[in-house]
Amino acid sequence: MSASLTIALGVELPPEIVERARKVSPGVELWTAAELERDPSGYREAEVALITGWLEQEHLREARKLRWVQTVGAGVERLLSPEVVARSELVITNASGVHAQPIAEHVWGFLLMFSRNLHLAAARQHEGVWQSQTYRETLRSLRGKTLGVLGLGAIGQRIASIGPAFGVRVIGLKRTKERVEHVAEVYGPDDLETFLAQSELLVNILPLTAKTRGWIGRRELATLPRGAFLVNVGRGATVQTDALVEALRSGHLAGAGLDVTDPEPLPAEHPLWKLPNVIITPHYSGAHPGYFQHLGELFLSNLQRYVRGEPLVNVVDKQGGY
Amino acid sequence: MSASLTIALGVELPPEIVERARKVSPGVELWTAAELERDPSGYREAEVALITGWLEQEHLREARKLRWVQTVGAGVERLLSPEVVARSELVITNASGVHAQPIAEHVWGFLLMFSRNLHLAAARQHEGVWQSQTYRETLRSLRGKTLGVLGLGAIGQRIASIGPAFGVRVIGLKRTKERVEHVAEVYGPDDLETFLAQSELLVNILPLTAKTRGWIGRRELATLPRGAFLVNVGRGATVQTDALVEALRSGHLAGAGLDVTDPEPLPAEHPLWKLPNVIITPHYSGAHPGYFQHLGELFLSNLQRYVRGEPLVNVVDKQGGY
Repeated sequence: MSASLTIALGVELPPEIVERARKVSPGVELWTAAELERDPSGYREAEVALITGWLEQEHLREARKLRWVQTVGAGVERLLSPEVVARSELVITNASGVHAQPIAEHVWGFLLMFSRNLHLAAARQHEGVWQSQTYRETLRSLRGKTLGVLGLGAIGQRIASIGPAFGVRVIGLKRTKERVEHVAEVYGPDDLETFLAQSELLVNILPLTAKTRGWIGRRELATLPRGAFLVNVGRGATVQTDALVEALRSGHLAGAGLDVTDPEPLPAEHPLWKLPNVIITPHYSGAHPGYFQHLGELFLSNLQRYVRGEPLVNVVDKQGGY
Repeated sequence: MSASLTIALGVELPPEIVERARKVSPGVELWTAAELERDPSGYREAEVALITGWLEQEHLREARKLRWVQTVGAGVERLLSPEVVARSELVITNASGVHAQPIAEHVWGFLLMFSRNLHLAAARQHEGVWQSQTYRETLRSLRGKTLGVLGLGAIGQRIASIGPAFGVRVIGLKRTKERVEHVAEVYGPDDLETFLAQSELLVNILPLTAKTRGWIGRRELATLPRGAFLVNVGRGATVQTDALVEALRSGHLAGAGLDVTDPEPLPAEHPLWKLPNVIITPHYSGAHPGYFQHLGELFLSNLQRYVRGEPLVNVVDKQGGY
């Protein structure tokens, strides 16, 4: 650890957080987002940087003193160029956990809209027709259903923790099998078929990696129980869109709640927009009013660890890709 | 208890339930819904009847042998004529509890749509526009909010039980103060103001009685914290509609989720249909796929109690009105 520490805050944080970052150790030199926008050369001097997901490559190349990068989001697939993966001195941490509550609320919102046909009522509200028969005929109930959580990180675990309150049984799949609270059964990647065959409600929170790209295709969707509902709040490209549309049209899938799609943005003429049991939100499930406060707290607590030479939290496995 | 028992099933139940009802004691004479439709004189002989909420008055007048009526729904305000209230030999039980899970799913669906602006996205999905800025700007979070449950019966308690999973603090108001699981503070009717002043999310499940009609008016809505969200799944007429529209227009209420309205059906030209943060479903929050199975089980278990001369469950307080 050098006596001085240069921090590049490439994202605007609440002023109180910035002040606390300045005081984290005696020799801090801090570039704010506004300063970096005027003069990106701050990245060249920085040992620590907080960055978004899309300005990174050009600055990263020049930033040879960087030892730690904290990202604003959870997904890091655009950041992990072969060059970045190869820089073994560079630790990357993501904002996993900051999104857990908003995404959990978003996902359960999708599930309950589907269960209670609230999306159908909302889509037709402007017509002003008081008629419930069409909504009543296809009502479902979450109670007694099995929810499969594909990707059991911080977000997946928060989603899982809500299952019991609705009488929903939760199973999950993660890279390394281990017991997870509120999750009846945890499967590994080799058990995908067994996992999918039980998932009447499937929530996909997979990161996009070489292994997960297109992982959920025709065969995997066919493995889901007939009438299943699929939620995607991970990355659109982990699901093959053509196979998804086909499964929705055939009725094998009863519906889908999609916060992410492939391609993204979804073109106006894409059939997904018009399928009656598809609920689409344009990639904002992770956003929430206190986001930058929460992110700032995470960054500060990691910064304190960094200054003390302690292990950071939310360290990305650069080989694994998330 | 007479040796024979005549039962009028004014509502179609699953055949297996009907068969079990026939066998509840040796001398059962049972009229099915189809038989009663052809010949309503069956009600005149019946000691026990299962009825809906709207055919009742004419049959009840003639049905002098009736000792117990089970209703299909929870609200009994249309059944409780002065004449019926005065018939002290006549016990009425309602279907409270059968609706608890579907209404709880419906209510939390409303709350999460509001929190995550899912109703706004659903209303505009047909436009096919991938643009999240307007949705992001007004996002909320349920975590840390206080939910006030107005009416803490079986339904209210089921709704309350889900609060902790989302990090929501739950308070409640009921006729008789008593501790209720998952509810931080239980208030009585005299504490309405104290209760409302804390309710950032208000769920109204009040039955319609002489006391609750129009109970929530201009003053009560003004007592809610600014930016509150009101859900009504009880009876529309417990809230004064003009006051509700005014509070929504002024922005004092940030939104409302309404499964019941006053009047009902809500006329096509009514302003509630068009207010952007109002989510309307045409009175089906209690419906669910297994409704008549669940109702049948409730009726059978009460029937067994009746035959054994034991106290029934879900007995309506005829004076109290619910």
